[in-house]
Amino acid sequence: MTQNDAFEFIHNDALLASSLWANIALAGVAILLFIYMGRNVEDPRAQLIWVATLLVPLVSISSYAGLVSGLTVGFLEMPAGHALAGEGGVFSPWGRYLTWTFSTPMILVALGLLAGTNRAKLATAVTMDIGMCITGLAAALTTGSYLLRWVFYGISCAFFVAVLYVLLVEWPADAKAAGTSEIFGTLKVLTVVLWLGYPILWALGAEGFAVLDVAITSWGYSGLDIFAKYVFAFLLLRWVAANERIIGRTDSIAEETTTSSASPVDD
Amino acid sequence: MTQNDAFEFIHNDALLASSLWANIALAGVAILLFIYMGRNVEDPRAQLIWVATLLVPLVSISSYAGLVSGLTVGFLEMPAGHALAGEGGVFSPWGRYLTWTFSTPMILVALGLLAGTNRAKLATAVTMDIGMCITGLAAALTTGSYLLRWVFYGISCAFFVAVLYVLLVEWPADAKAAGTSEIFGTLKVLTVVLWLGYPILWALGAEGFAVLDVAITSWGYSGLDIFAKYVFAFLLLRWVAANERIIGRTDSIAEETTTSSASPVDD
Amino acid sequence: MTQNDAFEFIHNDALLASSLWANIALAGVAILLFIYMGRNVEDPRAQLIWVATLLVPLVSISSYAGLVSGLTVGFLEMPAGHALAGEGGVFSPWGRYLTWTFSTPMILVALGLLAGTNRAKLATAVTMDIGMCITGLAAALTTGSYLLRWVFYGISCAFFVAVLYVLLVEWPADAKAAGTSEIFGTLKVLTVVLWLGYPILWALGAEGFAVLDVAITSWGYSGLDIFAKYVFAFLLLRWVAANERIIGRTDSIAEETTTSSASPVDD
Repeated sequence: MTQNDAFEFIHNDALLASSLWANIALAGVAILLFIYMGRNVEDPRAQLIWVATLLVPLVSISSYAGLVSGLTVGFLEMPAGHALAGEGGVFSPWGRYLTWTFSTPMILVALGLLAGTNRAKLATAVTMDIGMCITGLAAALTTGSYLLRWVFYGISCAFFVAVLYVLLVEWPADAKAAGTSEIFGTLKVLTVVLWLGYPILWALGAEGFAVLDVAITSWGYSGLDIFAKYVFAFLLLRWVAANERIIGRTDSIAEETTTSSASPVDD
Repeated sequence: MTQNDAFEFIHNDALLASSLWANIALAGVAILLFIYMGRNVEDPRAQLIWVATLLVPLVSISSYAGLVSGLTVGFLEMPAGHALAGEGGVFSPWGRYLTWTFSTPMILVALGLLAGTNRAKLATAVTMDIGMCITGLAAALTTGSYLLRWVFYGISCAFFVAVLYVLLVEWPADAKAAGTSEIFGTLKVLTVVLWLGYPILWALGAEGFAVLDVAITSWGYSGLDIFAKYVFAFLLLRWVAANERIIGRTDSIAEETTTSSASPVDD
Repeated sequence: MTQNDAFEFIHNDALLASSLWANIALAGVAILLFIYMGRNVEDPRAQLIWVATLLVPLVSISSYAGLVSGLTVGFLEMPAGHALAGEGGVFSPWGRYLTWTFSTPMILVALGLLAGTNRAKLATAVTMDIGMCITGLAAALTTGSYLLRWVFYGISCAFFVAVLYVLLVEWPADAKAAGTSEIFGTLKVLTVVLWLGYPILWALGAEGFAVLDVAITSWGYSGLDIFAKYVFAFLLLRWVAANERIIGRTDSIAEETTTSSASPVDD
């Protein structure tokens, strides 16, 4: 199948195509809105949160453009044992899993900066998250063995447990110390609940147990993306724009400059 | 088409082959020269600038070796609407766009350290630059839809605007404070003017409107690379080697150590 | 060849299959052991070393799952000049070289933090290491020209020399200052000796001069991985868990937080 065939396949299925185009439109709106919302942010840490947040819809619009064009989708012959084995190529939107490698670390960077975490915890969250996304991509692309699809799924979930640990145990305490407990608490719940939806959807979708069909699965991911990415980012940015002073009390990672004249050491 | 076919195609076109081999030779000379020029640099921030600068021709020589071997080039059937649609595979040096993802952030890291920028602005420049390169790669590889090639082109240009904003608005002020205004100003103009050449060349080349042929386009990129990479890096390194003290007045990002005994806190 | 064919090929060769499954088992044991060993580590820098070390077997188990499933292996037609040219596809475990891009930087981060290095040297080691792995991957995948396979091999070795320079010249002095000379010295020798084994094995294996057959080469890499990754990480973690106070005397990179209240500046 060429990209052209994939492009035709997607656009012959109105439900599938709309799940992708809707997100291109929403990501576009989110980008413009977020640029507007952050126009007056001046504190370096608040700016870094803003840029990380802005990158979420920027990666998202690129991701959906890749899916809708047929560039980052495939039709994979499933191995023996899979519900759809022998029924021809199964539509796989592997570009989703690839681009989550870029967008989800941005969400965690924004959350970690909001919580005022230290570098060790931020590095843990981000590296475990990248491990989760790459092994999730591997699960989707594995066609040599049904067992090993689920081995990769299990490894990806193990990485996810490490991310959840940082989100649920480490950062709430940091956020308390930083005085950002309330907004962090809201965004933490939003993130944890929605992120749990992704592995469940993968397991139920065409690439897992094939309980849900391709277009429904795609709308599932698109719906999760809308709340876990654009709504999440909107809530975060709205708070940061209104509470820059609380963020501004902090320094280090973001503010630190490369010239001594402006470095925290001289404060 | 196998890599072997691509290798033959390139070497049957003397103009195309020379555009690649010339850069392998020049990158090799640049590597040796830059190692020599930086041999006495001892200040940590100056060393970091030196390493970032040295990585530019190192990535470049790897990139051109990939192109010339046929590893990172392709022959893509263009979608309906493109000037060369239906005329068979169009030569695409997609490895160029892939490796820019590694080399151009090094240029920005070197420039940012020179300007004494803070972490938020450096992160902005680097992430937006990586977004620019990856979506540029996507534009080149998209064959399912002519419209979406240009959508990716547009997204890539939007990322570029963010990079230009940091280069033209944020960093000049930082460089003034750091006392590196003069050299930064020169390198900024060089970078901005030459970097503008890449999207223009892509639009005019075989992958865009197909006004220019494959070998001319390739020499265009190779020429831009020579000035935006090797000449740029030479000017930067020559200044850093001669003005280490100005760089040395600064600290933070580069100098910061992982042991308290040597940390800036104890100064 | 599909992934299914690759899966069959691997499992029809007991020696080859065991070289991969043995590492999945050992990496799994290492992950559980390392989580247990690090359960009481509380100092931020020690935690960062622990996470970097834990990521080594995590990346490794993912890597071997990719190899054993047939996802990240290929059968490549070698170019004229190669000992196996014209003999059909040669088994290439290219996923090994790809995943080293993720695991080996973790080893260097752990070693660098142990030595208390500064940011410039850590960035040098990590970027040169990534360059080494990516050009090693390119060497393995190049089939258009025999000469250019070895050009990439040479570039990869040049990057390796830069890594060796940091390991053998820069960090021993830093480790002395940080009071971690003894353990650093042991791990440095282990790393340098074992890492030298990889390029030698590549040159002797089926992808290089083809002196060794595919299964022997694979066991060679697997054996090197066992010592350079799991044994290395075990020795490092055992020391860190027992000597947290020595690590704890240090701060900066790991401990630095994003809130002023806990930043080193206020110490």
